[in-house]
Amino acid sequence: MALDHINMTVDALRGLLGDRLSTGQSVLDIHSHDEAYASAHVPDAVAFPQNADEISAIVTICAQHQCPIIPYGVGTSLEGHIVPAAGGITIDTSQMNAVIYINPDDMDAVVESGVTRTQLNEELKSAGLMFTVDPGADATMGGMAATRASGTNTVRYGTIRENVLSMDVVLPSGEQITVGSRARKSASGYDLKNLFIGSEGTLGIITKLTVKLHGIPEAISAASCVFEDIDDAVQAVITAIQSGIPMARIELLDDMQMRGMNIYNPGFNAPEKPHLFLEFHGSQTSIEEQIDMFRIISADHGGSDFLWAKTTEDRNRLWAARHSAYYAGRALRPGASSLVTDCCVPLSALAPSIAAARELVVESGLMAPMVGHVGDGNFHLLILVDPDNADEWQRAKTLSSKLNHLAISFGGTITGEHGVGSGKREYMRAEHGGAYDVMQQIKSTIDPLNIMNPGKIFMPTE
Amino acid sequence: MALDHINMTVDALRGLLGDRLSTGQSVLDIHSHDEAYASAHVPDAVAFPQNADEISAIVTICAQHQCPIIPYGVGTSLEGHIVPAAGGITIDTSQMNAVIYINPDDMDAVVESGVTRTQLNEELKSAGLMFTVDPGADATMGGMAATRASGTNTVRYGTIRENVLSMDVVLPSGEQITVGSRARKSASGYDLKNLFIGSEGTLGIITKLTVKLHGIPEAISAASCVFEDIDDAVQAVITAIQSGIPMARIELLDDMQMRGMNIYNPGFNAPEKPHLFLEFHGSQTSIEEQIDMFRIISADHGGSDFLWAKTTEDRNRLWAARHSAYYAGRALRPGASSLVTDCCVPLSALAPSIAAARELVVESGLMAPMVGHVGDGNFHLLILVDPDNADEWQRAKTLSSKLNHLAISFGGTITGEHGVGSGKREYMRAEHGGAYDVMQQIKSTIDPLNIMNPGKIFMPTE
Repeated sequence: MALDHINMTVDALRGLLGDRLSTGQSVLDIHSHDEAYASAHVPDAVAFPQNADEISAIVTICAQHQCPIIPYGVGTSLEGHIVPAAGGITIDTSQMNAVIYINPDDMDAVVESGVTRTQLNEELKSAGLMFTVDPGADATMGGMAATRASGTNTVRYGTIRENVLSMDVVLPSGEQITVGSRARKSASGYDLKNLFIGSEGTLGIITKLTVKLHGIPEAISAASCVFEDIDDAVQAVITAIQSGIPMARIELLDDMQMRGMNIYNPGFNAPEKPHLFLEFHGSQTSIEEQIDMFRIISADHGGSDFLWAKTTEDRNRLWAARHSAYYAGRALRPGASSLVTDCCVPLSALAPSIAAARELVVESGLMAPMVGHVGDGNFHLLILVDPDNADEWQRAKTLSSKLNHLAISFGGTITGEHGVGSGKREYMRAEHGGAYDVMQQIKSTIDPLNIMNPGKIFMPTE
Repeated sequence: MALDHINMTVDALRGLLGDRLSTGQSVLDIHSHDEAYASAHVPDAVAFPQNADEISAIVTICAQHQCPIIPYGVGTSLEGHIVPAAGGITIDTSQMNAVIYINPDDMDAVVESGVTRTQLNEELKSAGLMFTVDPGADATMGGMAATRASGTNTVRYGTIRENVLSMDVVLPSGEQITVGSRARKSASGYDLKNLFIGSEGTLGIITKLTVKLHGIPEAISAASCVFEDIDDAVQAVITAIQSGIPMARIELLDDMQMRGMNIYNPGFNAPEKPHLFLEFHGSQTSIEEQIDMFRIISADHGGSDFLWAKTTEDRNRLWAARHSAYYAGRALRPGASSLVTDCCVPLSALAPSIAAARELVVESGLMAPMVGHVGDGNFHLLILVDPDNADEWQRAKTLSSKLNHLAISFGGTITGEHGVGSGKREYMRAEHGGAYDVMQQIKSTIDPLNIMNPGKIFMPTE
C-alpha cells in the first residue's frame, strides 16, 4: 500500500504531529481490527491528536492527498467499523479524554470524544449524577455517538441519540462545525446532530460532545428471575412494558448464555435456564410498587426463583456479569471466533422472531447463545465459529443473513445498536430501499472525495 | 404570477385531479397565510390529493415545470411556513386523514399525514392509549412532524421527534421512500427520519407516519399554583426538575397572560399573578408522592393558592384554558396582530433569560404577555402590535431580534418548537455558523430544483 499519496500524507502528518504519528507495527496491529469477525487490515499510520484543531489539520492534509481517514475510539465496535480496509490514516482519540465541564444545574456535561463511559461516570458520582448509555464495552463517547450505541437501560433512558445535546464535528474539508445546542429541544433547521449520530465516521469526526445526565435514583433495586421457557420470559416483558412499569433494565439471557455466564464468572452459579435480569429505579415507594406489579406479572408467566441483589455489591456483581455476556458467551467454546447478530423488531414480533431465530440456529448446527434488550425488541445471537473452518463460517453467515431478512420482514431493523460498518452494508438496500440512495447522496455531498471511513455503511467505490 | 410554467402546471394538475384542484379565490385566500405575522401571498392553485401516489404524481408534474410546491396541513404554523411567497401549488393534505392502524401491543399507530392530534386521541381513547404531542393548535401529524412540534407535556413524553418511529415521504423527484422503521431503536445508517422531521416541507412531503403511543396513566392530577414573583416560579420549576419529579406538564404564565386568560375564558377568574399549571401522571401512590414533593418545593419558593383540578372536567377546563393561551393573549388587545417569540435555553439560563426578556419588553414599550414550557427551558412572548402602526411593527421586530440573539448567547436556540419558516431564516447563520452551510448543501442535493417550499429555512434564491 506504499502509494505515493499515502507517503506524502504520512510525511506531512509527521511534520505536524512528530512522535504522535506512529507507524510502528504493534500500533498498526492494534488499530487493524475491532471486536468483529471482519478481516483485519492495518492502517498506514496512526495519528494521536490532542485537540480539534489538530484533527482539523490532519483531515485537511488527508483531503489534499485524498487519503482515507479512519476515526478510532477504543476499537470495541462489532461490524468492522474501524478496520482500515483500504489503508489510510487512523485518527485515535485516546489523548482527547478530558471531561471539560459538568453542569449539575442543567444536568449536562461537556466531554472530549475520547472520554469513556466509565471514566465519565466516575467523575459524575460525587455530583449524584449518571450518564446512562452502557454498551457492553467501555466505549468512548465519540465511538458511541458514531455508532448510535445503546445498552441495557435504553428502555428507560434512551439511546445515545436521546442523550447527546450537541457535538463539535470536523468535516471532511477540515472545517469545524457545531451541531445541536444545549437547549433541551429545538425546531431550528435540519437535525444535523442526529444525522452525525450513527454516521460511523463517514461524514466527519466528532471531537466534543454535550451529553445529558440523569440523577442517580434515590433507590435502586435489581433482581434476576428464572423461567422454564424463553417464550414465557418474553411474554412477561411485553406485559410489563404495556402495564407502564418504568423498568430501568430488563434483559433476557437464554439457557445457553447462562451456562457461559457460569463458566466465565466463577462463583456465579446460576440455574442454566432462561433468565430475566431486572433493575428498578425511583423513590423507595415507587420501586416497591413497580416490583409488586412485576412479581405478579412474572408469576402469571411461570417466573420463579426471584433473586434479589439487595446490596450495591450484589447489584454491581449482577450487572458486571450481564456486561460480560459477550465474553461469557465466547467462553462456551474457547478459541472460537464469533459473529454477533443484532435484530430489533416491534415488541409484538419479538416472540415469533426469537422462536424463528432458534429454529434457524438448530438448522445451522451451530452454537449460538442469546441475550436481549427485550424491552426494546432487540436481541443478539452470539454465533460461535471455529475460525479455521470455512464451512462453519459459511453457515454462520447464512444464519446471520436469514436473521437480517427476518427482522426486516417483521418491520424491524438489521441492527438495533451495533451499526452497519462493513459487516451489514449488503443488507442496507433490503431494509431501506430508496432511502439508501438518499443516504448515499448525503454522503457524496458532505464527503465528495470519499475519504471519511470509506467502505462503511456504503459499499466501497471503484 | 400568470407565468407559462405555472399555467402548464395547473393545466396538467387539473387533468390529474379534476375538481380536486382549486383556483377559487376563497380557497386561495385560505391557503395564503398561517397564524403568523408574515405577509399573505396566494398560491396559484390548491391541490387536494387523496393518497401518496397522487402526491407523487403532483410533485412529478411540478418538478417537470419547476413549479414551487407548498405542503399544507391546517395552517396553524407561526413563522410563515405555508405562505406561498413565490406562488406555486399548495398541496393540502386534509383529505388524507385516515387512522390506518392502531396497534395496542406495540403501542404505535399508523396514520395519514392529514390526521389531527385530537382526531387521533379520540380514536385512541377506547384502547386506553394517548398520543402526547400537543401544540396549542389542533395541528396535523404531517404538520407537526414537518415543524418538529412539541407542547405542554414534552417535558415528560418528548417532542414529535421522539414520538415518530417512521414516515413515508415523497421526495422532490416524486419518488416515494420510507424513513425509519417500527423498531424502537436502530443503528442502521443515517437517521433520515429525524432529518425529515423539522425540514418544514423543504426536502419532501410526509404522507404517512407511524407514531408512538403512551398508556393513559392510571391516575392524573392537575393543579395551578400562584407566585408573587416570576423568578420564584422559575426557581421552583428548576428545583422540581433537578429533584427528578417526573412531572407530565409544568407551564408558566405571567401576570399579563393571566389577565388575558380571564378575559378570553369567561368564569376563569384566576388571580392575575404569575402561575404554574401542573400535571402529574402515574399510579395513585406515585402521583401522591410527586405532589407531596412539589408542594414542599413550591412552598420553599413562596408558591401559594395551590388549586386542585380534581375532576376530569376541572382538569380539562384548566388545560383548555392553557391551550387557549395564544388567543387569550391576543384578547388583551382586540384587533392587534401578534409576533410570537420562541426562545429555548438551558435551564440554568432560564431565569436570567426571562429577566432580560422582561427588561427588553419594557424598553420596547409594547405589550407582551408570556407563557413558557419552563421544564424545557422554552418560553414565548406574544408581542401585541397594531397592524397599521409601522413604528410598533419595527419595535416588535427589534424586540424579537434581540431575544433571538439573547437565546443564542445563552447557548440556546432561536426556536424551541415553532420552527424557522420565513420568519427566522435571517438568524440561522448566527445560531448555526458553518452548520447552516451543511444544511444548505443537503437541501441542494435532495431538492436541486428548489421547488419544495422555497424560501423557508433558507433565503430565497436569485
